[in-house]
Amino acid sequence: MLNFLLLGAGRIGKMHANIIHDHPKANLKYVYDLNKKSSSIISQKYKCNSTNNPYEIINSPEIDAVVIASSTPTHIEFINKSVKAGKAIFCEKPIDLNIRKVNRCWDKIKNSNVPIQIGFNRRYDPGHNEVQKSLIAGKIGKLEMIVITSRDPFPPPMSYLKSSGGIFRDCSIHDFDLARFILKNDPIVEVYANASRNVSKDFVKVNDYDTTMCILKSKKGVLIHINNSRRAIYGYDQRLEVFGSKGMLISNNIPKNNVESFNEKYSFSKNKIHNFFLERYHDSYRLQFDDFIKSVLNNAKPKVSFDDGKKALIIADCATQSVKRNKIIKIK
Amino acid sequence: MLNFLLLGAGRIGKMHANIIHDHPKANLKYVYDLNKKSSSIISQKYKCNSTNNPYEIINSPEIDAVVIASSTPTHIEFINKSVKAGKAIFCEKPIDLNIRKVNRCWDKIKNSNVPIQIGFNRRYDPGHNEVQKSLIAGKIGKLEMIVITSRDPFPPPMSYLKSSGGIFRDCSIHDFDLARFILKNDPIVEVYANASRNVSKDFVKVNDYDTTMCILKSKKGVLIHINNSRRAIYGYDQRLEVFGSKGMLISNNIPKNNVESFNEKYSFSKNKIHNFFLERYHDSYRLQFDDFIKSVLNNAKPKVSFDDGKKALIIADCATQSVKRNKIIKIK
Amino acid sequence: MLNFLLLGAGRIGKMHANIIHDHPKANLKYVYDLNKKSSSIISQKYKCNSTNNPYEIINSPEIDAVVIASSTPTHIEFINKSVKAGKAIFCEKPIDLNIRKVNRCWDKIKNSNVPIQIGFNRRYDPGHNEVQKSLIAGKIGKLEMIVITSRDPFPPPMSYLKSSGGIFRDCSIHDFDLARFILKNDPIVEVYANASRNVSKDFVKVNDYDTTMCILKSKKGVLIHINNSRRAIYGYDQRLEVFGSKGMLISNNIPKNNVESFNEKYSFSKNKIHNFFLERYHDSYRLQFDDFIKSVLNNAKPKVSFDDGKKALIIADCATQSVKRNKIIKIK
Amino acid sequence: MLNFLLLGAGRIGKMHANIIHDHPKANLKYVYDLNKKSSSIISQKYKCNSTNNPYEIINSPEIDAVVIASSTPTHIEFINKSVKAGKAIFCEKPIDLNIRKVNRCWDKIKNSNVPIQIGFNRRYDPGHNEVQKSLIAGKIGKLEMIVITSRDPFPPPMSYLKSSGGIFRDCSIHDFDLARFILKNDPIVEVYANASRNVSKDFVKVNDYDTTMCILKSKKGVLIHINNSRRAIYGYDQRLEVFGSKGMLISNNIPKNNVESFNEKYSFSKNKIHNFFLERYHDSYRLQFDDFIKSVLNNAKPKVSFDDGKKALIIADCATQSVKRNKIIKIK
Repeated sequence: MLNFLLLGAGRIGKMHANIIHDHPKANLKYVYDLNKKSSSIISQKYKCNSTNNPYEIINSPEIDAVVIASSTPTHIEFINKSVKAGKAIFCEKPIDLNIRKVNRCWDKIKNSNVPIQIGFNRRYDPGHNEVQKSLIAGKIGKLEMIVITSRDPFPPPMSYLKSSGGIFRDCSIHDFDLARFILKNDPIVEVYANASRNVSKDFVKVNDYDTTMCILKSKKGVLIHINNSRRAIYGYDQRLEVFGSKGMLISNNIPKNNVESFNEKYSFSKNKIHNFFLERYHDSYRLQFDDFIKSVLNNAKPKVSFDDGKKALIIADCATQSVKRNKIIKIK
Repeated sequence: MLNFLLLGAGRIGKMHANIIHDHPKANLKYVYDLNKKSSSIISQKYKCNSTNNPYEIINSPEIDAVVIASSTPTHIEFINKSVKAGKAIFCEKPIDLNIRKVNRCWDKIKNSNVPIQIGFNRRYDPGHNEVQKSLIAGKIGKLEMIVITSRDPFPPPMSYLKSSGGIFRDCSIHDFDLARFILKNDPIVEVYANASRNVSKDFVKVNDYDTTMCILKSKKGVLIHINNSRRAIYGYDQRLEVFGSKGMLISNNIPKNNVESFNEKYSFSKNKIHNFFLERYHDSYRLQFDDFIKSVLNNAKPKVSFDDGKKALIIADCATQSVKRNKIIKIK
Repeated sequence: MLNFLLLGAGRIGKMHANIIHDHPKANLKYVYDLNKKSSSIISQKYKCNSTNNPYEIINSPEIDAVVIASSTPTHIEFINKSVKAGKAIFCEKPIDLNIRKVNRCWDKIKNSNVPIQIGFNRRYDPGHNEVQKSLIAGKIGKLEMIVITSRDPFPPPMSYLKSSGGIFRDCSIHDFDLARFILKNDPIVEVYANASRNVSKDFVKVNDYDTTMCILKSKKGVLIHINNSRRAIYGYDQRLEVFGSKGMLISNNIPKNNVESFNEKYSFSKNKIHNFFLERYHDSYRLQFDDFIKSVLNNAKPKVSFDDGKKALIIADCATQSVKRNKIIKIK
Repeated sequence: MLNFLLLGAGRIGKMHANIIHDHPKANLKYVYDLNKKSSSIISQKYKCNSTNNPYEIINSPEIDAVVIASSTPTHIEFINKSVKAGKAIFCEKPIDLNIRKVNRCWDKIKNSNVPIQIGFNRRYDPGHNEVQKSLIAGKIGKLEMIVITSRDPFPPPMSYLKSSGGIFRDCSIHDFDLARFILKNDPIVEVYANASRNVSKDFVKVNDYDTTMCILKSKKGVLIHINNSRRAIYGYDQRLEVFGSKGMLISNNIPKNNVESFNEKYSFSKNKIHNFFLERYHDSYRLQFDDFIKSVLNNAKPKVSFDDGKKALIIADCATQSVKRNKIIKIK
């Protein structure tokens, strides 16, 4: 059994509180949020303690592990302190929006043995995960292409957009990690990205984009396409296609249920696909946490490392540069 | 090359004219219809002769084979004459609506060697046909259940209904034959049918039904369900499901194309399924005719025999009786 | 908040313990099972009390409600005692295998106001439930046909079969209830059933069947087909098709995830469908319990009544008779 | 009725001969091929004349139109001669592999009124075509992204590869045209392409690629992704996805029939998708020809113009350059 401090009680923090609470080997002991109202909602619901002093609790022997689900700029400080205190860390993506800060953090913590897992939950989506396993098992031969479609159902509010770091660091980073997950040990060496604005004027105001396409290339010559949109009216469009010398696997969208409708106008019609990441990736968040718990209890290295967080951010930076400078960017 | 006389130039006759014309080893030489206008349309379109005297042409050395696509009551006379003349026969279903007439016809012709094929085209539908082949090949183990769904897109006109022989002899007869095709040498020994009226008052007037369900049982204990409707607003619903000890095969409906639509309301939505038997069974009619031609040219027995026509009619009669008398009917 | 006594700690009891435990407005206070080992597993896992004297606890003011998940022959006694004690009752299907006992129980309890819900969970399956709601909402016009496919992945052990009451009372009863759910206020008035043995010799030994087909007819003329098998090698096949004057709805099978596989042999291939009722109906069991809790807390009548349990059993009895006597059975 | 001269009697010429023959308003009068054996096969099969002197026949009053299906280097000469003779022209893609030759040809013929249609048949594929029509009809709002997947089932022989002009001019050119068809009046202004070699060493020898990805951008900011492979073991993978502000449309792959297979290992499994362009685009080739006939007979401009042929080639040239120089290429 692991006792947890949850840092951050916002939307994603609430979800983690629920997951920690439900896990048979985890115990939600403390919750912290700058906003005391948020933390008290969780402390009441799950009968855990609320704290105003997270650093004290990080150091307390009462807890074994932390879940960092606070705002992005706070992640690194919490990581540093938790490593120092020797507490296992699960940290939401991204580690930080600034690669230099991430590098400096790494320099500090790299010699520690504290387990740390970054929240790239899509690796744990049952569909995406099976695709990767089947590839590794040789079911589609040698990997040749990856096509990732990842479109949000609706754009975030302006307030969020301002500090999001841009669509590549905020959204596509998940897809960059997913591509890396499929590629395994074959690094991405070239990034091209293009982008447009279709969804709202907000994106102009914050100098960001809402519609993007990338092509990445791996060292071994695998070609990867990723397309993103901030608004897909038909729901949260999340697809992974992997093409190899002996076949193709598609982890397709998931409608709410499997009712097929036939009428004067159409046939085989299903309900809308899931409309939000909390529904669509419900299982993946739980499986991710379960895997973290297992790693910690078994003294194994967590499967999604600090380095994975860093590498995905580097690709996101390259994509951002590629659009800005209208250039192909190489990764050394 | 076989020279053909086409008997009947109505809707189905027109289709056969086109099929004969397109077949590389068939030549449409004569067409006959009581309605001279109908036959002249075909004779002009395909540059063949029109005749007022079908019996003369049946006996003429100019033709090798006949396609009987005239009204049901004329079938037997045309069969008798063609057999006498030694001309290969393709006859649309049903042979006749009266089983005694069919039996008498059989007594007359059974000693001849004239090839005769009955138009149960569904056996040749690429989907249904593959299901049967896969079953024979052992892909789903021992046969245990058959479920056939067969629903017309809209009811025929009153004029047609009056002389249709009732839904079981007119529609379900195709499904009875399809069941027999799947069962191969295992005969149907028990028939239960029930029926309702939902579609229009016409069915009350002609003492017929528009919605039916049957359960048949074979000698070896295979259970067969068939359901029919005279009106499926979403198109011509034609499905065959075969269940065995090692799997299941479904020959499913076919939408007009494979475009999938996603919007605010639904996902994976396709166009309507085919709306009419000429579209849905377009291929099966051609493959059926091609098989007939091959049988004749190779001196092989056609695959859908007079006896198949007779057996399907017997089951249709049993189903009619089952509803009329609200009884389970045994077939000796 | 409702405090619960769980009666029965076998396979289905364990599932209910978990559901009660997870529900925010339910509290698992006591568990009872003849087999003390079974009940102690649950009492330890969920930190509740184990009792050897269920009748005492039924009467105790500590509990508000009971979940009856014990063996079928014990259901009626537990219902009677719970009604007497005024405790809300959730009882697994069937109420009993003997319709006379069920009737006698009803005579005893009918004047009480104790809420009682029977565990026909399929009504709560998100797919099946949506089909019913869409029908009620008029989306497919007037109801004309229902087709239910319900096939177990593998047969139960001989020990279970002996006291199962036969396939119609044990399995098909769920489908009879599902048909009644779709039919709403239109009663079933006629039952025909046929059956075969394909799966194992056990079914001969216990004079039962493993493969069945039924046709039911409602008072308004709706035709219903149900087919069952005790062994579908491809998984737990659970489908509901509802056909109306304006369209058709199919609640189709659900593969484990939505990965599509394409290779040299096939395309659009998915994983096996769910292989067991606990997976396939995972959501429906929870939604069913949640609805029960809501009914009790809101003083509303539970939606699946004792009468529903009785009516489904009557149809199962008719189906059993129909096969035994090879007759069509009318329900007055 | 239009009388035709068919130029070229190879694989694609044979297909055109068949299409001309089957069309009710077309008459195959002459066929020419350098290889006399090829042309005599067609002249015998369709009872038309074979010629050794195509230029004479182009000028003969006996013919109204030509179908150019000969080897690519001969296209321009045949176009020039036919324009001079005032004969309507249907010319297979590409016009030529050399854009300067294409431009010079255009300079010569631009002032004539001779109808000329280029064989970009995919515009006529029932699925792809419906997607375009639905977009124009506003069904998915404003166009934002296009994703085209186009993978051959197996690579062509070395002999073909040598003079193919490379994958972009030979294969992707169809997809560039398809993208232009969807974009309508919004021109492509930017091309990025990347490429790999996975399929065979032949591609190294001829300095070509077998696996490619492109991103194109239109003037209005629509982003287009195209991926190609010379070998998809699961069949001829042809998909078009169009994403707009109000929805998404996917023209998906088409399995050989609609049989779904369920067994111990998988569910909803269909046959392989079509394995060759003649099967997959069977309808599109016929619809394309029919549209050409209609245009000519109605004195309308053919819908796929010489300019369309030129523009697609320009994009193919840019993609070729983009890979060669590893640069983003702008189109003025």
